[in-house]
Amino acid sequence: MAKFFVTGAAGFIGSHFTDRALAKGHQVVGFDNMSTGQKFFLKDALTNKNFKLIEGDIREIEQLQKAMSDLKPDWVIHFAANADVRRGLDRPRRDLDYNTIGTWNVVESARGVDCKNVLFSSTGSVYGEPKVFPTPENGPFPEQTSLYGASKLAGEGILSAYAHGYGMNNVVFRFVSILGPRYTHGHVFDFMKKLKADKTKLPVLGNGKQLKSYLHMNDLMKGLWLVIESKPQGFQVYNIGHDDALTVDISIGYITRELGLTPKLEYSGGERGWIGDSPRIQLDTTKLKKLGWSADKSLEQGVVDTVHYISENSFLLSEANL
Amino acid sequence: MAKFFVTGAAGFIGSHFTDRALAKGHQVVGFDNMSTGQKFFLKDALTNKNFKLIEGDIREIEQLQKAMSDLKPDWVIHFAANADVRRGLDRPRRDLDYNTIGTWNVVESARGVDCKNVLFSSTGSVYGEPKVFPTPENGPFPEQTSLYGASKLAGEGILSAYAHGYGMNNVVFRFVSILGPRYTHGHVFDFMKKLKADKTKLPVLGNGKQLKSYLHMNDLMKGLWLVIESKPQGFQVYNIGHDDALTVDISIGYITRELGLTPKLEYSGGERGWIGDSPRIQLDTTKLKKLGWSADKSLEQGVVDTVHYISENSFLLSEANL
Repeated sequence: MAKFFVTGAAGFIGSHFTDRALAKGHQVVGFDNMSTGQKFFLKDALTNKNFKLIEGDIREIEQLQKAMSDLKPDWVIHFAANADVRRGLDRPRRDLDYNTIGTWNVVESARGVDCKNVLFSSTGSVYGEPKVFPTPENGPFPEQTSLYGASKLAGEGILSAYAHGYGMNNVVFRFVSILGPRYTHGHVFDFMKKLKADKTKLPVLGNGKQLKSYLHMNDLMKGLWLVIESKPQGFQVYNIGHDDALTVDISIGYITRELGLTPKLEYSGGERGWIGDSPRIQLDTTKLKKLGWSADKSLEQGVVDTVHYISENSFLLSEANL
Repeated sequence: MAKFFVTGAAGFIGSHFTDRALAKGHQVVGFDNMSTGQKFFLKDALTNKNFKLIEGDIREIEQLQKAMSDLKPDWVIHFAANADVRRGLDRPRRDLDYNTIGTWNVVESARGVDCKNVLFSSTGSVYGEPKVFPTPENGPFPEQTSLYGASKLAGEGILSAYAHGYGMNNVVFRFVSILGPRYTHGHVFDFMKKLKADKTKLPVLGNGKQLKSYLHMNDLMKGLWLVIESKPQGFQVYNIGHDDALTVDISIGYITRELGLTPKLEYSGGERGWIGDSPRIQLDTTKLKKLGWSADKSLEQGVVDTVHYISENSFLLSEANL
């Protein structure tokens, strides 16, 4: 049994990670400011004696230090973030505060309690608009096209420098967009929200041709745990995403089919959905596959599972903070 | 005539930049917290009616905003930084505060006054320990080995994301170590300080074989102004450094020859001078050369000029804050 400190534990990914950790018999302290986290994602965890939820904010290092010094974790798993990629330009300080300074606070707090292992959820957005597909971890020096990507890359650099400087074993995962139960953020959610308001038409950002890889939550969890249980040494970076990719149009096809709707599609046009959007995301996961990882669920299944989850929990579409 | 806002204007590089800008007939507002800056570097500038020095700290965005809103600059030239690469691990928050958050404050303030052009002094340290020499701007995705490099890379990402997101024309220069008059920071300074204390022996960090490129201040200034006057568009990154490189041992040879000393060299050993030191730095400057740039001064001349400057201003070796 190991002790895990999980930031963003009440979120989409953090709550799944927490459930898996508890199922494996580990002790978990979750840390979440509940700004987008949902307590009901943790309804099982909260009945487990090995779990404790602390309400706190990664922007406040004292809160992290206090929470970690009580637990003395073996691993700090850092999911908490400003994940609103699209609206970075409206609130340019948010990405810096949450994703860069917040990550420094988390890593520095881990060091403070002599925790040697930190895992960080970064993003394929750090590649900007790559020229190589699928994009490997050590591809060409990237150019940042979004404040989100820039802030996550800054977080990666902190994990790396701390690994080299203080002998930590820090792991960065560069995620594609994740699909599956508890999904409350991203294009499937946005489309379903729009269709709930008006099922006859669907405004689409961009030209519908953006081609992106996704991954089902089950396959993400499999990858994270594979790496954690491999006892990684030094600084490690892993891409994680499905080999396959979907255009926005194909995603819309799956979503509307599942909902039995035939809305008129209204494209805003352009190959990017918004400034900083990457028209194509496909990551090379050779490094992770060498550890034995592969994706089980197709992207179609990922979209379908997501649509069904949101349909069954449609109150989420009305939550003010999502 | 254009209006320049120069952070770190009282420093080694900033004061030279200020002098050149004034010589070209531009208006300059210098912004410096005087923590390592020297007012006497600006003794000529301070007699020029086109120059004004504001004492302020880049960690305080309100100070930047106020100073910039008075000037409405055409260019913001951002040199202010924590440049103490070596001691990052003793004070891990400093690099974040000055080089990442400070850079965000500068770029955001520029945006606030609708200044479209920001130039940022980054570093070859962002390449960590590269595998390709000379290292091009778009070489393999780097791994950060120092908090300094990580914090500067984070600053670069901010300039890039702002260029893409807000239509700014931002330029990043990745510097090697700079040599020449007003040099108050780096290996020549450290060695001369040690030799002043005891001329019979010289402690050397590492094995003396670290191989690094440098650049004379005159050649740095030539490169910066060439790019500024080329009216760069969008986001641009330029390496700048001499094609040649010196081992620490060769540098020591030049220094001791100029000083007429023959100290016993005492190596601490290892191929790195300190944790996070890069054993080899040589940058590919093809991109800058395409604009017509080349270095005029040899590295030997750079070291010699530096030794003579420090000898003629030896009180600098006793300055408490250097």
